[in-house]
Amino acid sequence: MREALLGVGDDCALLRPRSGLDLAITTDMLVEGRHFLPGADPRALGHKTLAVNLSDLAAMGAAPRWALLALALTAADEGWLSGFAEGFFALAERFGVELIGGDTTRGAMLTATVTAVGELPAGTALLRSGARPGDDVWVSGELGGAALALIHPEIAQAALRLHRPEPRCALGERLRGLATAAIDVSDGLAGDLAHLARRSGVAAVVDFERIPRPGAFRSLGNRQLEQDCILSGGDDYELLFTVPAARAAEVQALADELELALTRIGRIETGPARLTVRDEGEREIAHRGGFDHFGGR
Amino acid sequence: MREALLGVGDDCALLRPRSGLDLAITTDMLVEGRHFLPGADPRALGHKTLAVNLSDLAAMGAAPRWALLALALTAADEGWLSGFAEGFFALAERFGVELIGGDTTRGAMLTATVTAVGELPAGTALLRSGARPGDDVWVSGELGGAALALIHPEIAQAALRLHRPEPRCALGERLRGLATAAIDVSDGLAGDLAHLARRSGVAAVVDFERIPRPGAFRSLGNRQLEQDCILSGGDDYELLFTVPAARAAEVQALADELELALTRIGRIETGPARLTVRDEGEREIAHRGGFDHFGGR
Repeated sequence: MREALLGVGDDCALLRPRSGLDLAITTDMLVEGRHFLPGADPRALGHKTLAVNLSDLAAMGAAPRWALLALALTAADEGWLSGFAEGFFALAERFGVELIGGDTTRGAMLTATVTAVGELPAGTALLRSGARPGDDVWVSGELGGAALALIHPEIAQAALRLHRPEPRCALGERLRGLATAAIDVSDGLAGDLAHLARRSGVAAVVDFERIPRPGAFRSLGNRQLEQDCILSGGDDYELLFTVPAARAAEVQALADELELALTRIGRIETGPARLTVRDEGEREIAHRGGFDHFGGR
Repeated sequence: MREALLGVGDDCALLRPRSGLDLAITTDMLVEGRHFLPGADPRALGHKTLAVNLSDLAAMGAAPRWALLALALTAADEGWLSGFAEGFFALAERFGVELIGGDTTRGAMLTATVTAVGELPAGTALLRSGARPGDDVWVSGELGGAALALIHPEIAQAALRLHRPEPRCALGERLRGLATAAIDVSDGLAGDLAHLARRSGVAAVVDFERIPRPGAFRSLGNRQLEQDCILSGGDDYELLFTVPAARAAEVQALADELELALTRIGRIETGPARLTVRDEGEREIAHRGGFDHFGGR
């Protein structure tokens, strides 16, 4: 772990940036009643509140380094806090993240806001705006599991995706110099890929059947649910990225090395910035834009 | 304003630190029902939520540069948001702060978390741990006004201190190389100076009558209220700092230059780390430890 110059205990933490490195910084909040229900497992919340921020760092290709945590608690519940801390620090330790600041207060509902800071070589960040015609569209892991768990909490594989998302930090770092653009799937594939297409000024075409998904969808046999979860469900925190078609073998080699499924699900084309999702018969599948934090799903 | 390499709109913001500079980073949260009442003026909240973070940067001697904002709103109220933004950005602009990231969601109560980042020459940060016997204890502005406004909201001068605290950024930067230690008065003089004394391993002695305070206390004539507000009231966001006694004239010159009252209220002595507050007759005044976010005042 690369330690901060000064951690918790003073008015601010102090970082001494290394020359030649840029810093990536992001903030994300989890709110009771919105992102989780009262009574949710504090260990899972501690994990997830950090994981969603590390996922943003991964999507830039940054190596995670430091985090700050602002917590509003409904009561000074030691049992709850120790569970939350257990989940938070277990993930922090696994990714070499140092907690360098925080603020704790009491509120009428629980909210947890993390700010995460990562490092990457100057000028190498993976932006949303770099996708070019001729690129393939890739995704890590599987999509739709977290959304499925909201409907079928009894499916353990899906529940794990919702409550214990795994930030793809190693992948993000290795995609520097290989991917032309990247974003993490936090609001749903359709919405997030549409963002990327808009920022890049390109058209994206996705083959629905190629999108990797949990096996549970097959046994449920509910096509509409499957489409909704996979295209519009949020909270999967996989990486969605574009790579020139000629470099597909390098992505496959990376998948083998990281022991992480990386799947080519579509391509980038010229044309107006939009996303098209097609079924096996090349018919367009309608999709909603993904998670809207003000309007619900 | 020194612009970030990449601001809002991607997974993270990107900063390219300048060589020879350290970064100071801090996070502070305002929570409805705890730090402000429902129905509070959104412009004042926008101002204060940024001001309390800039105050932490000032207490380290850092020049404010960037901020991230995480906001949970009870409803997508455009009127409220525009008022909040007005207060936030007016202060940001005045101090050259660029908003580089954020997260907005809906919640059952309003919370606003800001993370602020500042720069300062490497190794020049004002820590809480640097006070030495022979230093004087100084404070900027006046203390007790914000706490007084909680009891007497009709006193305009006090209300201004509570709702529109002014972060002492120019002072903080000028104290680099002059002050031996600094902290901002957010939890109350007694608690914050006790922190500084503990971190420095020194005794601090304060003469109560020297502490600058709003004139309103004189007309109220309530000695207990006055002591409570001045010693244990929080939210004043003045800087409390220590300077070798031989350099007092430099502090006075700085006060003239910045047109900001700087008052010598005590001294640092050898001995066990503790704070003593004395009245005119050199009798010790009992005081509470300051604001406790879990226990109330």
